[in-house]
Amino acid sequence: MRKICVAVHSRANYARIKSLLRAIQNHPQLQLQLVVGASALLYRYGNVIDIIKKDGFTPDVTCHMVLEGSTPASMAKSTGVGIIELSSAFERLSPDVVVTVADRYETLSSAVAASYMNIPLAHTQGGEVTGSIDESVRHAITKLAHIHFPASELAAQNVIRLGENPEKVFFTGCPAMDLLDGLDLRLSADFFERHGGVGHTIRSEKEYVVVLQHPVTTEYETQEEQISETLSAVEALDMQAVWLWPNVDAGTDGISKILRSYREKNPQSPIHFYKNFPPLDYAQLIYNSRCLVGNSSSAIREGSFLGVPAVNIGNRQKGRQCGDNVISVPPERSKILDAINQQLAHGKYEPNPIYGNGNAGKRMADILATVDLDINKTLFYKES
Amino acid sequence: MRKICVAVHSRANYARIKSLLRAIQNHPQLQLQLVVGASALLYRYGNVIDIIKKDGFTPDVTCHMVLEGSTPASMAKSTGVGIIELSSAFERLSPDVVVTVADRYETLSSAVAASYMNIPLAHTQGGEVTGSIDESVRHAITKLAHIHFPASELAAQNVIRLGENPEKVFFTGCPAMDLLDGLDLRLSADFFERHGGVGHTIRSEKEYVVVLQHPVTTEYETQEEQISETLSAVEALDMQAVWLWPNVDAGTDGISKILRSYREKNPQSPIHFYKNFPPLDYAQLIYNSRCLVGNSSSAIREGSFLGVPAVNIGNRQKGRQCGDNVISVPPERSKILDAINQQLAHGKYEPNPIYGNGNAGKRMADILATVDLDINKTLFYKES
Amino acid sequence: MRKICVAVHSRANYARIKSLLRAIQNHPQLQLQLVVGASALLYRYGNVIDIIKKDGFTPDVTCHMVLEGSTPASMAKSTGVGIIELSSAFERLSPDVVVTVADRYETLSSAVAASYMNIPLAHTQGGEVTGSIDESVRHAITKLAHIHFPASELAAQNVIRLGENPEKVFFTGCPAMDLLDGLDLRLSADFFERHGGVGHTIRSEKEYVVVLQHPVTTEYETQEEQISETLSAVEALDMQAVWLWPNVDAGTDGISKILRSYREKNPQSPIHFYKNFPPLDYAQLIYNSRCLVGNSSSAIREGSFLGVPAVNIGNRQKGRQCGDNVISVPPERSKILDAINQQLAHGKYEPNPIYGNGNAGKRMADILATVDLDINKTLFYKES
Amino acid sequence: MRKICVAVHSRANYARIKSLLRAIQNHPQLQLQLVVGASALLYRYGNVIDIIKKDGFTPDVTCHMVLEGSTPASMAKSTGVGIIELSSAFERLSPDVVVTVADRYETLSSAVAASYMNIPLAHTQGGEVTGSIDESVRHAITKLAHIHFPASELAAQNVIRLGENPEKVFFTGCPAMDLLDGLDLRLSADFFERHGGVGHTIRSEKEYVVVLQHPVTTEYETQEEQISETLSAVEALDMQAVWLWPNVDAGTDGISKILRSYREKNPQSPIHFYKNFPPLDYAQLIYNSRCLVGNSSSAIREGSFLGVPAVNIGNRQKGRQCGDNVISVPPERSKILDAINQQLAHGKYEPNPIYGNGNAGKRMADILATVDLDINKTLFYKES
Repeated sequence: MRKICVAVHSRANYARIKSLLRAIQNHPQLQLQLVVGASALLYRYGNVIDIIKKDGFTPDVTCHMVLEGSTPASMAKSTGVGIIELSSAFERLSPDVVVTVADRYETLSSAVAASYMNIPLAHTQGGEVTGSIDESVRHAITKLAHIHFPASELAAQNVIRLGENPEKVFFTGCPAMDLLDGLDLRLSADFFERHGGVGHTIRSEKEYVVVLQHPVTTEYETQEEQISETLSAVEALDMQAVWLWPNVDAGTDGISKILRSYREKNPQSPIHFYKNFPPLDYAQLIYNSRCLVGNSSSAIREGSFLGVPAVNIGNRQKGRQCGDNVISVPPERSKILDAINQQLAHGKYEPNPIYGNGNAGKRMADILATVDLDINKTLFYKES
Repeated sequence: MRKICVAVHSRANYARIKSLLRAIQNHPQLQLQLVVGASALLYRYGNVIDIIKKDGFTPDVTCHMVLEGSTPASMAKSTGVGIIELSSAFERLSPDVVVTVADRYETLSSAVAASYMNIPLAHTQGGEVTGSIDESVRHAITKLAHIHFPASELAAQNVIRLGENPEKVFFTGCPAMDLLDGLDLRLSADFFERHGGVGHTIRSEKEYVVVLQHPVTTEYETQEEQISETLSAVEALDMQAVWLWPNVDAGTDGISKILRSYREKNPQSPIHFYKNFPPLDYAQLIYNSRCLVGNSSSAIREGSFLGVPAVNIGNRQKGRQCGDNVISVPPERSKILDAINQQLAHGKYEPNPIYGNGNAGKRMADILATVDLDINKTLFYKES
Repeated sequence: MRKICVAVHSRANYARIKSLLRAIQNHPQLQLQLVVGASALLYRYGNVIDIIKKDGFTPDVTCHMVLEGSTPASMAKSTGVGIIELSSAFERLSPDVVVTVADRYETLSSAVAASYMNIPLAHTQGGEVTGSIDESVRHAITKLAHIHFPASELAAQNVIRLGENPEKVFFTGCPAMDLLDGLDLRLSADFFERHGGVGHTIRSEKEYVVVLQHPVTTEYETQEEQISETLSAVEALDMQAVWLWPNVDAGTDGISKILRSYREKNPQSPIHFYKNFPPLDYAQLIYNSRCLVGNSSSAIREGSFLGVPAVNIGNRQKGRQCGDNVISVPPERSKILDAINQQLAHGKYEPNPIYGNGNAGKRMADILATVDLDINKTLFYKES
Repeated sequence: MRKICVAVHSRANYARIKSLLRAIQNHPQLQLQLVVGASALLYRYGNVIDIIKKDGFTPDVTCHMVLEGSTPASMAKSTGVGIIELSSAFERLSPDVVVTVADRYETLSSAVAASYMNIPLAHTQGGEVTGSIDESVRHAITKLAHIHFPASELAAQNVIRLGENPEKVFFTGCPAMDLLDGLDLRLSADFFERHGGVGHTIRSEKEYVVVLQHPVTTEYETQEEQISETLSAVEALDMQAVWLWPNVDAGTDGISKILRSYREKNPQSPIHFYKNFPPLDYAQLIYNSRCLVGNSSSAIREGSFLGVPAVNIGNRQKGRQCGDNVISVPPERSKILDAINQQLAHGKYEPNPIYGNGNAGKRMADILATVDLDINKTLFYKES
């Protein structure tokens, strides 16, 4: 039995790895070890851990590592605290493999801790191209990882171009798509009421857009301007809007402040703010929306699979492989508004399986059960 | 005036960056900020900070970050503490560029702290290929860095193959070679006496070999065996031996124990143990030796420049570009001994400037004064 | 010139030390070094650092140390991070004295860092008796401190009973009272509008109560019940209520959740929620209120000086010396409501200077300029 | 079954708590949880953890927390790291009681972590009076602890004078004495050979003194002078000397340097250096010595029980209750030498049970099984 330790640190992490957790649980040769940390533990970010438990997973260790403040220095320090906490967790669990998801600082903490502890590291979502510090961190983690599960074919090529051994690069698609496959995507009548949140009541039979815009940490100084442009565009749209609070990152507090202040001054505005949706509910939410607005990768990944029209704002996703469903615009009110209107006019797109076709989790589990776990690696380039 | 913050964490770091420190000091458009941390602060590792101060450099901040224990978990935790400490240092100094040297965990700490704080990162010694965890960490740092100063031409090619923008990759050679260029390499009569240490008296007029063997952290379990093979080979050689204590790494304590125990039991053995030599003295030491034995990169880098015969043991340097002066062997007594004897029979080699021709520091300073400092980066591949 | 380093970590800290900051600034033999950390840096707690700067003080170092989560374990870990960060700050500033305020974990962090660094430690508010973990921590800090500035005469006696040398115990009163002395306590017409916050509009010409209830960390499990009782009592009162968000402590998230949920469900309730008031505005706020409700020490300290009727709930202040203005009740709705009504019927009390008469800051500064700074201390008891 | 978690951090800790570990193991209502951390894990300090395991105890968690450097700032930071690590350990083990031993920074780390986590804290060796930072820290821990096991009657009185509830103060004596009671104190012929170490061969049939001098952290600047005086006195004595390396503390590196340097220059000196003795062997060692020299508390505690003549140097033990066996002198060569000669002339003293009579561990275990575990505490003084 190989012990596979998966570290889940945020709501996005969880949606992108849940089907693998299930596949490991169900695999006769694998034992699941679950570490839950960072914003997945926090009330401010919707207590993702409660959703995880409700889904039948039992965390083996929880790791508090987020230093309050959301400045660049506090984000760096959180990475440091994360390494300290996660190395204690890994020492206790002594896994055969650590699985780390995507490209945030908690992901890097897991990767560094596992690397120095000589634990083979598997990494999902490597090889994608975006903006922000996530871009650098994602590729750095690829260079620390031993087993790669890129989500798209282009991403798989990039991982190999980064000098990884092709025998350890497995294009599986993203587990997030597994959740969508065959899912009943209809909204229940009490959908919005059930999920709490604050602000204007959203009626599920009426049209709505979904907004999710995270800080771009490398553009820390202009976060508040950027979010104001989006807010102003959505306001002009005059359609129901479901707005999700951003990730915990340098700049989050500034964004939250703008949003809270707007809400107090505009109690009649048709916007409702939510902290969090469980993965399946999130899929239903976006599938039934008229347009996704912001800079979340879910617009590109889940969005392409579901054919949801999306307006991608600014540099955070710059360079990420997109389907036809995405229009990218700079963070300017009028361009955002034009693009949303263009998408509303277009309506649904054809589904596009760039990021997987629904069996990623199961394939990853099968690979983890049998792949060679040698920790020695070296820059790999075929002689040309 | 650009503020260039250089982080120096060990004796090896210092030798490989000293000429850049001087060049920054002397550059009209640059201001040097010096952070000294990790083993460079420690008595056990020869108080490198005292040498730095004696050379006329004034540390702006010192950072204790080494957690005692030398296990894989404590090395991971030290990386975490390092990030916490270095982000405080960078917050205080607010440099325009951080320079980080080579591939150890302190180097990674600097790189992570600077990255999340949106400070442009310059990296030396990227793109080289070796074994051990250093291999992974070196390439991960390349993916976090914005400005690259690889030490060899092949290394420069590798950095570009890793998807870095060729306009930010500067093949400058290694500053360590700058120190050697034009240096009076003769040993003074009191050379060995002056440097303290413990064990058998070394007479400078007699032949000697130099041994320096670090732990291979990814082969943590076999460190003690590996060092015993080398010790046994050197013993059989029956020539004066200058032995340097290893780096602070997982496995160091095991190696130290073997060496200390040997020394107590063999007070007549012609081995003398030293903690540390200042960079110039180290150059004189190896230049005048008959052979370098162990797994230090200095045998390959400085060794090729000086033409010193070297026997490289085990996997730590696996894949690093070598000149003719190096014979590589597995960690086995008889093979080590045979190789040393072969090198003694051969004697000095022709100098080989693979790792630079003596002007690295000055070139780096000039580049740092003018290079574009954009922190946004993206995977860079010319369309083929 | 003695360098006096004051560490300010929260809004309460600041009000209780501001007049000392000013007195140090104005003292010819003292130089002020200001460290601002913990919740004083956080947006969620009202960005106290902005108020500090606006008042003309310049922080020398800021220290992020609060780990998000508000569980008992994360509070412990924050103390650890605080020690690491504050020892860097003290190493950089090399003060002659560190001043630490009151009894929270950040206060303990300052005390531990200073102690091990051989820096003389001055402590305010020692010797008071309360409930919660603050009680233990306050006396522990007294045992680490070298110079004591208790706020009441009974507290001064307690510090001496704890074995401190009476020559180092100075009953100065609390600097918070200095701010109140001679202050214009009238509310401006735009007072409530100016301070932002969320909820029902408060009209300054109408009667209001002020509520401030922090978690009792040693009763972590029952926080939510306790706050619900208070909320229910205040609701029954049907008077305007100014409600302040609680401190960052284990249990805060639970309390915030109750308050937020109440607010969403009761948009018509006459409660307005505020994050923070600057010290002087806070004094005006409570002076003009009909009653203070909750478990803040300000009801007892500032409250007694200003003669404001107060209802003190639960164990957090258990044992603290009170004036006549305080009625203490258990955390039960009906008892809270009865006590508030009793206080409304009574109205203002005579001012009572138990906690100082308005010159604490100046006296402390004079003492800090001349007091002997020997760091050696020993359990002190006069032979009886 | 109550879970009793004992944190052991050094060789001294272990000797002073071993009999309690055994008593907990053997108690039908108690379950032992063992945390081993700090210098007890370190090769440099004799791998105390190996001795612990050999004695039949299994550590549940190990905590690396010692930051290399031995400066005041690194000692503070180690305390911070200790709190972070120990709170993870306690979270995992969820003990009913944490037991912390004596007065060092690791002890304080345990106490702070347990306090903020609402875990009842039992403390041994409270109430004693000494010099150094240990004095302040010891009493601070008393103020955080809920259950007190002072080692002497005077210490018990002091704990009560510090405002602790007499019902929670149990004068049990020190568990170190339990080990000595009924022990065969004869030295085996191979005693010294068996314990390794470095330096001159000690012959067990000849007279010897034992030296153990730790740094006084509050006199950090003069450590090297102080140790030189002792070294010079012991040299003048010209008797076999068993010298133990000091604790890990600010100043340790300076002391080690003096000792190492002396040893290299004086290979004929009749001094042998040891890292560590297991508790029982240490008892045999000192019982058979002619005199104990230095500033270890073992000279006062175990020394009084065994009647061993002792010369106590400097301020580290200043104020600690002593039996007749101790002569205290300042750190001056001639006074040290005179006192040693006086003790050699006197010979063995009558045993004196100030610090216990041999049943401390068992009594503590019985108390831990039944004592009330309320975590609320308050300053306790009988009204006079």
